[in-house]
Amino acid sequence: MNVAILGAGNVAWHLSRAFIMSGYPVRQIWNRTPDKAADLSFEIGGNSISDLSQIKDEIDLVVITVSDSAIEKVASLLKLKEHQILVHTSGSTSIDILKPYAKDVGVIYPLQTFTKGIALDFSTIPFFIEGVDSRLEDKLLRFMGTVVPKVIAANSDQRMKLHISAVFACNFTNHFYSIAEEVLKEAGLEFEHLKPLILETANKILKTYPKNAQTGPARRNDVNTMDKHLEVLSTHPDKEEIYASISQHIVKMYQKKAEDLK
Amino acid sequence: MNVAILGAGNVAWHLSRAFIMSGYPVRQIWNRTPDKAADLSFEIGGNSISDLSQIKDEIDLVVITVSDSAIEKVASLLKLKEHQILVHTSGSTSIDILKPYAKDVGVIYPLQTFTKGIALDFSTIPFFIEGVDSRLEDKLLRFMGTVVPKVIAANSDQRMKLHISAVFACNFTNHFYSIAEEVLKEAGLEFEHLKPLILETANKILKTYPKNAQTGPARRNDVNTMDKHLEVLSTHPDKEEIYASISQHIVKMYQKKAEDLK
Repeated sequence: MNVAILGAGNVAWHLSRAFIMSGYPVRQIWNRTPDKAADLSFEIGGNSISDLSQIKDEIDLVVITVSDSAIEKVASLLKLKEHQILVHTSGSTSIDILKPYAKDVGVIYPLQTFTKGIALDFSTIPFFIEGVDSRLEDKLLRFMGTVVPKVIAANSDQRMKLHISAVFACNFTNHFYSIAEEVLKEAGLEFEHLKPLILETANKILKTYPKNAQTGPARRNDVNTMDKHLEVLSTHPDKEEIYASISQHIVKMYQKKAEDLK
Repeated sequence: MNVAILGAGNVAWHLSRAFIMSGYPVRQIWNRTPDKAADLSFEIGGNSISDLSQIKDEIDLVVITVSDSAIEKVASLLKLKEHQILVHTSGSTSIDILKPYAKDVGVIYPLQTFTKGIALDFSTIPFFIEGVDSRLEDKLLRFMGTVVPKVIAANSDQRMKLHISAVFACNFTNHFYSIAEEVLKEAGLEFEHLKPLILETANKILKTYPKNAQTGPARRNDVNTMDKHLEVLSTHPDKEEIYASISQHIVKMYQKKAEDLK
């Protein structure tokens, strides 16, 4: 398989490395800002192109890694041949968006948070695959199975829910690390102190389901402690509101659980 | 130092191990439910007692690990001698609560999430120490410094903020893992798939501050994707509301950051 990568951001940076490491050359790289395409091609080889109509016939797989809102525009400017497969890598974009622009269309969605320059262990990251028909889906599953060990078929609805779950488990979680950092800063304390707790919280889910690992004032419905915390947070209405609403949601979840067991 | 532990829950289980491993015998264990005290003393040695007035003269340090709401009641039933130090282990309880019940009072607050039966690496957990006066605080810092490597002085206000930051970084974070699990379940997908993402999200904070690690639709103010997610969540108004409010808070935080840089 000869690969072309469209986009030169974090996903492109990581995916192109995974392809190359598995023996699939990334022959062409396009980016809206040509300099960035040139930078990436300098790092990983291949040629940067400035015009989407320049995809060569030797390319078998065209991977769109641009931001969701630009996927259709990028796809519409391609002039692909019958044998070329077109995929995007977006969690919350349907496969349908690609259908007008190629016969064989699909999705390769890696469930991970990508930061440029921080290498990832691809052996643990699950890749969710969709193909326009079962023949192509099988082909993409087989191909990606030679790049990474974890490939799973998932349709567009499932992929959207994967993305939503990732927003909660990764994006929102990281935001709470930021809030915690701000609270500590106000008390003249280093964020450093929280690191063992953050790592242990994440590592616990390797041993048990998150519902069994839940601790804290809301889990115990410890109204007295929650009130003290809300009092301290009252000078920051945003944080106070988030604290109250998440705590309430936790209380409700475990009340419901207790009732289910009755 | 001879230690007595009051309470036989998760904190007692872990702390008593830390004391014993450092050569400080836990001689007496009390719990409201005597069977639980007996169970813990069976595991770690020492004697279980059923009456709080039975603390022996040989005890140097009495550690209250019961739930916050029971601390004062437990302290009030003790009959301590002049040489005996009384501490609690609560994040959100002031040192003042102990003052009527002993001359030397303090706090030993380990910042960690404790799950009974899951061993912890005490070498990484920070312990926050407060003493009623600087003489006792120094004494407690020195003593705890022989039990664990990370001891830091923190007053009751700072400790409360440590606890609040832990609620965000640990309890609320774990709750979002639970929500993510529910979203995946609905899509017929295993929670397993999220584990690499959760671990990477936590591990990132070892390399950079959380504000630099923030990714996701809200960080990019990608209204289109957020709307799609809210649409999918609309059958679960609680989740929809949380998604909207946290996303809004993220958008605001980074807008503010961008303005600060202007």
